[in-house]
Amino acid sequence: MSEFVGTALLILLGGGVVANVVLKGTKGFGGGWLLINFGWGLGVFVGVYAAFKSGAHINPAVTVGLWASGNDFFAGNPELGLAAIPATPLNALIYIVAQVLGAMAGAVLVYLVYKQHFDAEDDAGAKLAVFSTGPAIRSYGWNLLTEIVGTFVLVFTVIAFGSTPSGLGPLAVALLVVGIGASLGGPTGYAINPARDLGPRIIHAVLPIKGKGTSDWGYSWVPIVGPLVGGVIGGIAGAALVA
Amino acid sequence: MSEFVGTALLILLGGGVVANVVLKGTKGFGGGWLLINFGWGLGVFVGVYAAFKSGAHINPAVTVGLWASGNDFFAGNPELGLAAIPATPLNALIYIVAQVLGAMAGAVLVYLVYKQHFDAEDDAGAKLAVFSTGPAIRSYGWNLLTEIVGTFVLVFTVIAFGSTPSGLGPLAVALLVVGIGASLGGPTGYAINPARDLGPRIIHAVLPIKGKGTSDWGYSWVPIVGPLVGGVIGGIAGAALVA
Amino acid sequence: MSEFVGTALLILLGGGVVANVVLKGTKGFGGGWLLINFGWGLGVFVGVYAAFKSGAHINPAVTVGLWASGNDFFAGNPELGLAAIPATPLNALIYIVAQVLGAMAGAVLVYLVYKQHFDAEDDAGAKLAVFSTGPAIRSYGWNLLTEIVGTFVLVFTVIAFGSTPSGLGPLAVALLVVGIGASLGGPTGYAINPARDLGPRIIHAVLPIKGKGTSDWGYSWVPIVGPLVGGVIGGIAGAALVA
Amino acid sequence: MSEFVGTALLILLGGGVVANVVLKGTKGFGGGWLLINFGWGLGVFVGVYAAFKSGAHINPAVTVGLWASGNDFFAGNPELGLAAIPATPLNALIYIVAQVLGAMAGAVLVYLVYKQHFDAEDDAGAKLAVFSTGPAIRSYGWNLLTEIVGTFVLVFTVIAFGSTPSGLGPLAVALLVVGIGASLGGPTGYAINPARDLGPRIIHAVLPIKGKGTSDWGYSWVPIVGPLVGGVIGGIAGAALVA
Repeated sequence: MSEFVGTALLILLGGGVVANVVLKGTKGFGGGWLLINFGWGLGVFVGVYAAFKSGAHINPAVTVGLWASGNDFFAGNPELGLAAIPATPLNALIYIVAQVLGAMAGAVLVYLVYKQHFDAEDDAGAKLAVFSTGPAIRSYGWNLLTEIVGTFVLVFTVIAFGSTPSGLGPLAVALLVVGIGASLGGPTGYAINPARDLGPRIIHAVLPIKGKGTSDWGYSWVPIVGPLVGGVIGGIAGAALVA
Repeated sequence: MSEFVGTALLILLGGGVVANVVLKGTKGFGGGWLLINFGWGLGVFVGVYAAFKSGAHINPAVTVGLWASGNDFFAGNPELGLAAIPATPLNALIYIVAQVLGAMAGAVLVYLVYKQHFDAEDDAGAKLAVFSTGPAIRSYGWNLLTEIVGTFVLVFTVIAFGSTPSGLGPLAVALLVVGIGASLGGPTGYAINPARDLGPRIIHAVLPIKGKGTSDWGYSWVPIVGPLVGGVIGGIAGAALVA
Repeated sequence: MSEFVGTALLILLGGGVVANVVLKGTKGFGGGWLLINFGWGLGVFVGVYAAFKSGAHINPAVTVGLWASGNDFFAGNPELGLAAIPATPLNALIYIVAQVLGAMAGAVLVYLVYKQHFDAEDDAGAKLAVFSTGPAIRSYGWNLLTEIVGTFVLVFTVIAFGSTPSGLGPLAVALLVVGIGASLGGPTGYAINPARDLGPRIIHAVLPIKGKGTSDWGYSWVPIVGPLVGGVIGGIAGAALVA
Repeated sequence: MSEFVGTALLILLGGGVVANVVLKGTKGFGGGWLLINFGWGLGVFVGVYAAFKSGAHINPAVTVGLWASGNDFFAGNPELGLAAIPATPLNALIYIVAQVLGAMAGAVLVYLVYKQHFDAEDDAGAKLAVFSTGPAIRSYGWNLLTEIVGTFVLVFTVIAFGSTPSGLGPLAVALLVVGIGASLGGPTGYAINPARDLGPRIIHAVLPIKGKGTSDWGYSWVPIVGPLVGGVIGGIAGAALVA
């Protein structure tokens, strides 16, 4: 439930900022890439606070990355009476299913919040962009590489956070995601999270959005496989180098 | 008094950034949505510091949301000799009246700071936008939903802050408001605070602003009802899920 | 010496960001108001770190504001062997002279760093803007009011910082200055600091800058008197309400 | 190894944001100077977390600056079982070689992540800009001075950080780099780090980038000598004034 709520809030704010920037007639229309980066970063900020009871992965790539690194999914919190959650196949499955369902719920909320702007928009590509990522230049191999590198940086650095205590709390990972978006998001729109891309794409396919066009399923495996591979590499490298 | 001063500073900085971006001839004219988001977020930052003696709600939606969540309005601070303030109907009334009056005072200050730019501006809509929110596409039902969702995220996350200590202090809620604005502000300009909208709208109606046009009272109930409903839902859900 | 170095760094970074945005041919040309706000805010960030041995006023309005509030100029730091510095007329004079001289030194450095861009620029107004503030719409009374309000917010909130501990350190005042600039800087360019305006204006008058035009001494009293008045009001109000 | 990984991540994110802003067809194309500043600043943020085992210099100018200041390269961390690393010629050599090699590795990654956009871009100058800095107006003397001043501010302030504890952790130096970029990056693109410029320039010369043009070796000494000189001055001044 914790992962469900956290991922839903992540997608609500992340998809919301894209809607604000790309859909016709919004107050943030044309607001630029840095605005999108802050929207997603602060979506992570909010989602991590909301999902603290489960360690706040809100991303299957983090779940598999922590698994690969040998960490627990959640270290527990005795003060709040929360037990540790070990990394097991069943727990991984529960986390990932909750994340995908949460992302679906978040995408429905984005659609409702921006309903009139979806109706007013003519460009089907802009509508899909609110839900899921797509390549600036389509080439599955290079796009996959970009997603692998971006997610590697995410998981590797999340593990490094554990070794340098600060008072930043969830702001550290929020800023990390702002940075990955600013720097590595140019070619593919930085899914770096399979649930973030798959859940909303399912919603895009299912909802009766006016003039919505294709859900681009041909690309959909890239933002699933890339982040999972990058997460595993990041987890192993993080455990070896910065844990 | 604490809520009065805090809300006045919130509106001074929040209304000020809108004036800077939309009124003719200012140095920040056309500065973009992210600038507006930071202006409001840092308005919250300043307002929360100023209103620490009352728990720094500076927003009736937070007041009713905390009430719904079962929290005190203010936990108290023994070091500073401040007693806890329980959630009672009378205290709620005092908070909300102080917030609306504070918002009115802040709006007067914005008008005075930008007096010459109000005089130089021809567009009545731009002038009203400095005071109160309005819909990008008018449709009271959808606009209301947008305000409910935005305020839900605000109050829910404020309650979650209590469970994940950090050294961010008032910066956490400031960044939360930046994120809500970036992501959910596109359709209605994110009132997410009844006092923020009502107080300045009263001032807009009362002040002899040159060429000011309508105060759009037909829309004014949306940014009151939406935030109150969203705040109550956020308070109840927060108490159940992230307290 | 501490105030001298801190104010010099403040002006180096603050004047530098203006040069970057307004002078011909720089890499940040036309970078926008939020870039300017962050440049000044982070100039404060750096200046405060550099001036910690004297309490890091780096602004005569803060010096007189603290004086009016009844605080010491610096509380001292026993761990570092630093004694408290009481608020006396002589100490105030030393602080303010060091601040103005520091601002002059910082302005010289800005000129040297951007020397070629000063030479390439034809607009005398852009050159003066790197050094000192000027009104968007000239009207000494209203301009003065704007500076009073902006500096009031600065000093009042700096005093409030003392009552809500956080781990932000100098970032709190840096963000405060970002917010004041974003929201209240539109009409006058937010001097909110007499040394910030006077020191560089003297340098502008003295240096042999190619095609520099007037130093606009007619306006120069506004960003001196306004911040001093606002600082005193902020200090008194802060001591009464948020100390 | 720690310096290698940290510098590689710095360049991956720093070069990445430039690629995103200047190369044809990216999602962040034309995103502006503040976006570039945040990309580099957050590259420092990530690189510092990754390189905590060696004190996180990730910059030869910091290495020589600390040396000049009389500090150890790394104070050690008994909790993590990490010994202090003294400032010796051999250690300096190891740090700097690792930093340059790390910067080279990071530049290769940037090329791979943005491979298709390098291929689509016609402007050789834009391609070089992803790797290394260049002057807005070429004049080796003034360009050198700009790099000296920028790196002075960096190293001086890093030393000052030690005297004002906060909970910001690596965010402090990240924001410092955002500020230097915003304010002092206009004339030369703020190398302020010899490895950041030299490593990627070597990669630019070596890789078979389509239509890449000159690597501008004539300028390459400026962003090496300037930061080293500025770092030494900053280290000496920092030890005298803010340690």
